[in-house]
Amino acid sequence: MKISVSLDRFKKGLGVVERIVASKSTLPILNNVLIRAEDSQVVLSATDLEMGVNYYLGGKVETAGSITVPGRVLGNFINSLSDDKITLEEKSNVLYAKTERSEASLNGMPADDFPTVPKVEGKEVLSINSQILKAAINEVAFSASLDESRPILTGVYFVISNGLLKMAATDSFRLSEKTIKVNSSEDASFIIPIKTIYELQRMMTLSEDVKIIISENQIMFTLTDLELTSRIIEGEYPDYEQVVPKAFKTTAILNTGELASNVKSASFFAKENANNVKLLFKPNSLEVEATSSQLGNFKSNLTGQITGEENEISFNTKYLLDVLDKINTEEVSIELVGKLNPGVIKPVSKDANVMYIIMPLRS
Amino acid sequence: MKISVSLDRFKKGLGVVERIVASKSTLPILNNVLIRAEDSQVVLSATDLEMGVNYYLGGKVETAGSITVPGRVLGNFINSLSDDKITLEEKSNVLYAKTERSEASLNGMPADDFPTVPKVEGKEVLSINSQILKAAINEVAFSASLDESRPILTGVYFVISNGLLKMAATDSFRLSEKTIKVNSSEDASFIIPIKTIYELQRMMTLSEDVKIIISENQIMFTLTDLELTSRIIEGEYPDYEQVVPKAFKTTAILNTGELASNVKSASFFAKENANNVKLLFKPNSLEVEATSSQLGNFKSNLTGQITGEENEISFNTKYLLDVLDKINTEEVSIELVGKLNPGVIKPVSKDANVMYIIMPLRS
Repeated sequence: MKISVSLDRFKKGLGVVERIVASKSTLPILNNVLIRAEDSQVVLSATDLEMGVNYYLGGKVETAGSITVPGRVLGNFINSLSDDKITLEEKSNVLYAKTERSEASLNGMPADDFPTVPKVEGKEVLSINSQILKAAINEVAFSASLDESRPILTGVYFVISNGLLKMAATDSFRLSEKTIKVNSSEDASFIIPIKTIYELQRMMTLSEDVKIIISENQIMFTLTDLELTSRIIEGEYPDYEQVVPKAFKTTAILNTGELASNVKSASFFAKENANNVKLLFKPNSLEVEATSSQLGNFKSNLTGQITGEENEISFNTKYLLDVLDKINTEEVSIELVGKLNPGVIKPVSKDANVMYIIMPLRS
Repeated sequence: MKISVSLDRFKKGLGVVERIVASKSTLPILNNVLIRAEDSQVVLSATDLEMGVNYYLGGKVETAGSITVPGRVLGNFINSLSDDKITLEEKSNVLYAKTERSEASLNGMPADDFPTVPKVEGKEVLSINSQILKAAINEVAFSASLDESRPILTGVYFVISNGLLKMAATDSFRLSEKTIKVNSSEDASFIIPIKTIYELQRMMTLSEDVKIIISENQIMFTLTDLELTSRIIEGEYPDYEQVVPKAFKTTAILNTGELASNVKSASFFAKENANNVKLLFKPNSLEVEATSSQLGNFKSNLTGQITGEENEISFNTKYLLDVLDKINTEEVSIELVGKLNPGVIKPVSKDANVMYIIMPLRS
């Protein structure tokens, strides 16, 4: 293999694939990045066996061929260079890298031993603008569970139906749901591992279309320069819609920033009491309370538009702050049934299409 | 105690003293901040027994008194507030904090049990602009040792003599020395613990005079709003000037950024070989080399003004990069005797007043 590529593009491609390189795999070759040159195309690939990525580099191919080299070292080294072009040549499993003033040799391993990152052959179920998808991931994914004992909850649930994409995530203590209008004639539903979701989010740096292609147990996202493939989480996602309250006794419209800063203040007092903050809904005012036998107590008073019955509920400050952090409208609504029912939190906006649910704590 | 203070100033003061609060002390009261109100002055204090700080808050004193409260919690909580003023009242060892919309109570401990942070009574040995001192600390302190087995090297050595302040730090592998003209009639020398030096550096946010006052085993730095006191490291600093070569066989003038980026590239190959990078000085060119039996090899070529004999030396890339990171002139000079003698590195500037020495590695 002998190729010549733009150093900037090589840095960018390595930045993308390097994150997928398994960091401490029992299979040493998974710590490597595959560089493959054929026809007029140079491809970088990495995989941790759950996820794989192909990055299309462009560049000039003098001789086709391939090699794998340690991903972390290659990335660090290449990032420290500052020339325009780099020439890469493979000889006897050693990669020779040359720029105008420097040259390096990196010991590699044959490409034959590298697990392929196959293209997923299946149906395209969706094409969506990357920045819309990225924003939706940001609003939803944080509610997914990190607890591997219920694998089904460690992903983001996608449902495409009737021209709508719904994305949901829950760890059973809180739930996020986002709804987006899409052009799709195919109905489908699948659960994407949270790790894949976050890597995809990082890869969507430009505004372009992402295509989603599904096979029986694999998913592939294609962008202009790259393909990300991943396993799908198998099983049936819980029917979360049944926990969403349909009618409410109390509705509060509050200033988002003011509520967040008061809950933040309360959180320091709530820490040793399971992060328990109590919200008391009174006519036109919300009281925020936290108590700690060891530390002391906190109480504050917010004005707001509160309609319906007087009510109260206790939330985990962490979950409430997570949600308020994602809401970027000036006002937020909190809807309650009673202190033992889930609370529903939404941005106040005529085109709000995201909903958060937090389960109450016993106070 | 009952006082009213500006919330902004209270935040700033807590930000300063909170860092000195011992984080996991066996003496629980050292986790606390002392709030003391007397006459028309409110003072915040914290100490970890090695270092202490008094911060003068200003504010309105209604009733004099004092209390200590957990520093970390107080700091986090106060930082989350966003009013203009805060009222603080002590009753039965509880601190009641009130702003316009919120109120909190924090359980405290009596001030009587708090170790005093005494003013150091001694002679003023120096008054110097804080930003000049801050820049000098930045250039010198990183060479101090972190190894407690030779306590004398875990500080920065100050020598005031003949209208000059010299500051030096060394861990016996590399040395930094800075010289500054000062107005001082008192000669003195003392070793300041590196932790004190770094805290002082963070506290010098404004351009103002710092006064340094010395007693037998204590030092005090006074700024407009605060006093920082610390122990001095006892013992005699090594006579480091005797290791500084007086005559050289080779001098190289190189572009600082170019050298740094080439050494950085080499460093990834040098890692498994004790960070060993070899510099080969040839007529008008410097070769940078690193080799690793496992990873591979790196070699690059820099043009530069090299005078004297051809020469070579091996350095620890980490020490060399540390030094190059501090040099902000376009060019840097490296002066050598031979490959077993220390190398001397300086910024190229007519008013350069800093010198770095790095001991060679055997290559």
